[in-house]
Amino acid sequence: MIITRSANRSLLVVGSVALDDVDGPFGLHRDQLGGSASFFAAAASFFTNRVSIIAVVGNDFPDQHIEDFVGRGIDASGIERADGSTFRWVGKYDSDMVSRETLDTQLGVFGDFQPTLTADHRRAELVFLGNIDPVLQRDVLDQVTAPSLVCADTMNFWITGKRDELLRTLERVDTLLINDEEARLLADDHNLIRAAAKILRMGPHSVVIKRGDAGALLVYGGGVFAAPAMPIEDVRDPTGAGDSFAGGFMGYLAYAGNLEPDTIRTAMITGSVMASFSVEKFSLGGLRGLDREAIQQRFDAFAELIRFESISL
Amino acid sequence: MIITRSANRSLLVVGSVALDDVDGPFGLHRDQLGGSASFFAAAASFFTNRVSIIAVVGNDFPDQHIEDFVGRGIDASGIERADGSTFRWVGKYDSDMVSRETLDTQLGVFGDFQPTLTADHRRAELVFLGNIDPVLQRDVLDQVTAPSLVCADTMNFWITGKRDELLRTLERVDTLLINDEEARLLADDHNLIRAAAKILRMGPHSVVIKRGDAGALLVYGGGVFAAPAMPIEDVRDPTGAGDSFAGGFMGYLAYAGNLEPDTIRTAMITGSVMASFSVEKFSLGGLRGLDREAIQQRFDAFAELIRFESISL
Repeated sequence: MIITRSANRSLLVVGSVALDDVDGPFGLHRDQLGGSASFFAAAASFFTNRVSIIAVVGNDFPDQHIEDFVGRGIDASGIERADGSTFRWVGKYDSDMVSRETLDTQLGVFGDFQPTLTADHRRAELVFLGNIDPVLQRDVLDQVTAPSLVCADTMNFWITGKRDELLRTLERVDTLLINDEEARLLADDHNLIRAAAKILRMGPHSVVIKRGDAGALLVYGGGVFAAPAMPIEDVRDPTGAGDSFAGGFMGYLAYAGNLEPDTIRTAMITGSVMASFSVEKFSLGGLRGLDREAIQQRFDAFAELIRFESISL
Repeated sequence: MIITRSANRSLLVVGSVALDDVDGPFGLHRDQLGGSASFFAAAASFFTNRVSIIAVVGNDFPDQHIEDFVGRGIDASGIERADGSTFRWVGKYDSDMVSRETLDTQLGVFGDFQPTLTADHRRAELVFLGNIDPVLQRDVLDQVTAPSLVCADTMNFWITGKRDELLRTLERVDTLLINDEEARLLADDHNLIRAAAKILRMGPHSVVIKRGDAGALLVYGGGVFAAPAMPIEDVRDPTGAGDSFAGGFMGYLAYAGNLEPDTIRTAMITGSVMASFSVEKFSLGGLRGLDREAIQQRFDAFAELIRFESISL
């Protein structure tokens, strides 16, 4: 099921396509399809059939995953296959299904990744820079010709390890999507509103702070929007929730075809919707088998979750 | 300023009236008026002029605080003065203004408190059992004749130390208002939705889980409501935020005069409004000087904070 309408803007994501070993209360799941670009593209693919992935995988990466991307209407022509191993992440979730420990990260072929975009990919209207080296993020930005929106993610590793490079990238980013701990680290302020204000001075004109089961905040010049998180009784695998959020967020913007504040607020909810589906199953399982009705129903459930009557005292 | 209308139900709170020493990034503030009943009554007093406090203070308690309660239209006739020291809490907030350490708790005259309610107080329509010994909570319940709503708070100390007594009290409580860590401890489940479901089986027909800057959840037979927290840039003193929430919540229910689900959702927002004011200043300072316009404006700001457009995919 692909929901499209006339706007249907092109959406390019550069990020990891990975194989994950995910351990936790529900057992060890090996060789799961993962990576920021995988979750992002799968989530976005419900809103536009013009999603393209820029990534690299190794010899060990199953063809089936590529075929699955193509089956979802995703352009996988930008997924390079290189000699070596696919990016691997090994993590273990605590019994609370919130805290997790990264046990191992093997960059593999991602370590030497130098993407060269095709003419078609360079014309992408919306661009998502997944959580990768900020130098690589900028390499991609140098190649796209005139994107109407550039969103980016990053993580503690780059915030502390390549801060200057990250700051140079941020100058060219419209919307930064990061989690609360990353926002605090980047801005060196525990208060999220003050942290967001500092991040806006680094370049982005809006920042989305993802807070897991506490929802997400959008902070922009015009104000603040708080998206709730859908309370989920059975969280199986939070891996990729943030990227699913970003995919639902940008996928909806590609679908809607404008960047009005009200459209962006709605996109925060479609992002939350896709994240809420993503955590219910392992790997991309939560994003499989969804259809227009399921997404609409979950969207409406968000509206009901926060509905209240106004008063006049 | 007291906002009243015809419903204007009577609202009785039993809890602590205390003197706090609050330390943290903004310095040490000694002998601050505190206690669950103080914050609750002050917050509720904006919505009804029929709030009564049942509590005890010692010889060291300044008359001025009693006069301030009366000045707010609060019935302080149930505040007993006993020979000894007022309940004292000494705490220190971390630089994040979220984590705190209790450095000392001195029950003082509260240790022997055995309230005897007047005939008038026994007829209270709405009753709030602040965070005190569950045996004492039940003593008060035994005296009130026919309340239409009983809400209660509790804490880790009673959940672990007097669990059986607490469970006996909970059987007689309509709505339990607790924070997320307490809910997890009480239900022995990290997942808040599962924890809430377990708590509903203990007696209450609804549970409000207060999550600090992540907002509050209302879980009841008919569903879940998620109230956002207002992002506050300058949090000065989170002490009493939960009790201010409870006061705004029950105060509004007294004002509205019904317990319809939609009224309770709105009460979750008035609770959040009063909590958001409370944290901005020390002691009850954030609840001073408010008026109808300020409360209405903050309420409207909550509506704007979470406003988004529905979509039809």
